[in-house]
Amino acid sequence: MTAVTRPCYNTPMTAEIVAIGTELLLGHVVNTNAAFLSQKLAEAGIDVFHHTTVGDNPGRLTEAIRKALGRSDVVITSGGLGPTVDDITIETIAKLTGRELILDRAVLKDLNGYFKLRRIKAPRDSIRQAYIPEGAKRIRNRVGTAPGLIVEVRGKVIIALPGPPREIEPMVEHEILPYLLKHYALNPIPYTLRSRTIKLTGLAESQVNAKAKDLLSLKPPTTVGIYAKLGEVDLKIMAKADSDREAARVIGRIEGKIHSRLRGNIFGYDEDTLEGAVANALKRKKLTIATAESCTGGFVSHRITNVSGSSGYFMMGIIAYSNESKVNMLGVSPFTLKKYGAVSREVALEMAEGVRRLAGTDIGLSLTGIAGPTGGTKSKPIGLVYIALAMDDCKKLKAESRKLKALVKEFRFKGTREEIKFQASQAALELVRRNV
Amino acid sequence: MTAVTRPCYNTPMTAEIVAIGTELLLGHVVNTNAAFLSQKLAEAGIDVFHHTTVGDNPGRLTEAIRKALGRSDVVITSGGLGPTVDDITIETIAKLTGRELILDRAVLKDLNGYFKLRRIKAPRDSIRQAYIPEGAKRIRNRVGTAPGLIVEVRGKVIIALPGPPREIEPMVEHEILPYLLKHYALNPIPYTLRSRTIKLTGLAESQVNAKAKDLLSLKPPTTVGIYAKLGEVDLKIMAKADSDREAARVIGRIEGKIHSRLRGNIFGYDEDTLEGAVANALKRKKLTIATAESCTGGFVSHRITNVSGSSGYFMMGIIAYSNESKVNMLGVSPFTLKKYGAVSREVALEMAEGVRRLAGTDIGLSLTGIAGPTGGTKSKPIGLVYIALAMDDCKKLKAESRKLKALVKEFRFKGTREEIKFQASQAALELVRRNV
Repeated sequence: MTAVTRPCYNTPMTAEIVAIGTELLLGHVVNTNAAFLSQKLAEAGIDVFHHTTVGDNPGRLTEAIRKALGRSDVVITSGGLGPTVDDITIETIAKLTGRELILDRAVLKDLNGYFKLRRIKAPRDSIRQAYIPEGAKRIRNRVGTAPGLIVEVRGKVIIALPGPPREIEPMVEHEILPYLLKHYALNPIPYTLRSRTIKLTGLAESQVNAKAKDLLSLKPPTTVGIYAKLGEVDLKIMAKADSDREAARVIGRIEGKIHSRLRGNIFGYDEDTLEGAVANALKRKKLTIATAESCTGGFVSHRITNVSGSSGYFMMGIIAYSNESKVNMLGVSPFTLKKYGAVSREVALEMAEGVRRLAGTDIGLSLTGIAGPTGGTKSKPIGLVYIALAMDDCKKLKAESRKLKALVKEFRFKGTREEIKFQASQAALELVRRNV
Repeated sequence: MTAVTRPCYNTPMTAEIVAIGTELLLGHVVNTNAAFLSQKLAEAGIDVFHHTTVGDNPGRLTEAIRKALGRSDVVITSGGLGPTVDDITIETIAKLTGRELILDRAVLKDLNGYFKLRRIKAPRDSIRQAYIPEGAKRIRNRVGTAPGLIVEVRGKVIIALPGPPREIEPMVEHEILPYLLKHYALNPIPYTLRSRTIKLTGLAESQVNAKAKDLLSLKPPTTVGIYAKLGEVDLKIMAKADSDREAARVIGRIEGKIHSRLRGNIFGYDEDTLEGAVANALKRKKLTIATAESCTGGFVSHRITNVSGSSGYFMMGIIAYSNESKVNMLGVSPFTLKKYGAVSREVALEMAEGVRRLAGTDIGLSLTGIAGPTGGTKSKPIGLVYIALAMDDCKKLKAESRKLKALVKEFRFKGTREEIKFQASQAALELVRRNV
């Protein structure tokens, strides 16, 4: 029922994060690693009081690590582990801790395996990555070439990780957190912090705010926060309590209130996605779907097929970008196109029914609209999108939907071309979720 | 030809950024302000060597600002200016600089105006935001309630900004940068820093590294950096010179070297995208395209249609997820499907030719593969993707492509389902770009 259980310890433990890279200081790259690492450490009950970023500069990096090591138990660096001469993290840590760099056969083997698997000749410099400080533990990198390292220094620990987020994530989950808990013999005591995120769509932040105002002003130990994203608003409940059970009880009570006020717009919890909610609804009812997209250009189908196992219910999609393809592929009537225009309720309905018939699915979903930045008119402005559902006379569907057979909705979105495509996909998925 | 022109000064000036907020240390919020501020400062010719993040803790905040003030000319803080007791930035700066907090009538007037305009009753605590350190300059906040502040301290400057990015952005552009240039009497002298990013695909970072090793170890005033992303490697040339012309000349020379070594893999420069490069190639040759996607589920078409004006050359796409749709929609032979399997060179070729014929376009592009995380076998592992191009016997195409009529390539990608979809889309777009 809840997302995060955060243990507490008798001896509080602190970690801090040192990000390395001139690209961060130039603002070319946003430091998402600091947020990711902090979140994982917080979940493990380890306090983080400082983040620092420095460039690829030995002097400043040495100073940053030394300072961090002075005030925290664990120092995690990210970046600067690549094979190039810019990458100075390992050498700096070796110097700082007075160790030699030695060739690690296991790392070398992994490196050679990496290039062999990809049928690439290993570049000469890549061997630099196989030299690690004497006595360091290596953390295997299953995504890229640079291994992570754990260097223990007088009761404290330096952990060096590569820069790319997708390389760091599995290393933290599978190796670093288990190592820290074991190394520091951390035994959780029975205080917990739990959280629960409730995800809504189809409402503006101000509408959710108005419905949950009393909850949003709650004070610790139980709080509710509101987070607005494009096409989504999240409510996050956090509760601190003496026991896991008590925290769960408090969260359950608040969740019940939110549910009773906003039920229809809740599509999921915690790590859920809207495409996942659609997947569950379709699988539960054993329904199949096909899509006909115009303005979204395949993005709705992309999101549907991001769910593993989507081939069980998603049969096919047609991206009917030209008028000819709407007529020839989907059987939209040239008369309808001419009379109402490609962006109209009528064409949306014919597209949805056309793709449903063509694919022989229970549901046909269609979108037609104006994504911009050009092509808008006064009566059909940029951001105008029609979304239609066509439904088979199928007993598995909700009674209301079966009676309707088809429905169409008009939306007016704001934003860039990609933002309009995203919001349209969000509304389309929500339309499916609500009507099956 | 170049992306950024950055002025230089006789006396190099340094700034650093101190972000404040427990939500940053818990990883609930990503510190995008540091990247934004750094980018703006870099463009103004001001060096940034450190970012620091601390929580809403007076001791640690005081230490962070004091340290920053010791080593940099300008310290910019973000966050902690709200009306609640958690917001301690102003008090901390006042104490650190030995100033009283006094009520500022102009700020109070702005605050009252803010609430009046929105027809909201001003919360009691909001008056806290009208107290500012003696002698501080206020920076008007036209988006939210917390004003920014400039506090001059013994030839150095502390600038306090609120946390929300959309409040900071106009303040930086319209007030802070002009203030810094004026306050430090920074007269750009005719030195400039220019940069040029060269974007490549189809090579691993290590392969690009091997080809550009000598360039990557260049020392200032001219440097080349390497940045690896998923399915893309960027080389960024930065040159500092006496004149804009000289910087352009130096960059041109290095760019020429990179071009001569890696020409085939360069798809664009600076802000270019691969889908944009494909768009330009198709438009230049007046070619039309249609897509047949299986494993990418519409993502390739989504990227093609992210380019405004893509309706001029992209006619339609078929997402043939089921075997039936491959046969019924694209005319793939059931025999081929059975003999070679859906993920095969043969099926990819029939899909490409099928969609080309169906849409009547010059080019048909197809993808079939295994995106995972399930469905892999020993002979057809997760990440195996076939990408095919079918080409009309069209005079507008390259002679080689016309002669071929069709081609297919095998790829083996690594990563999550979405990462495999992305890399496949990258390879597919690159295949089009290279063969038209």
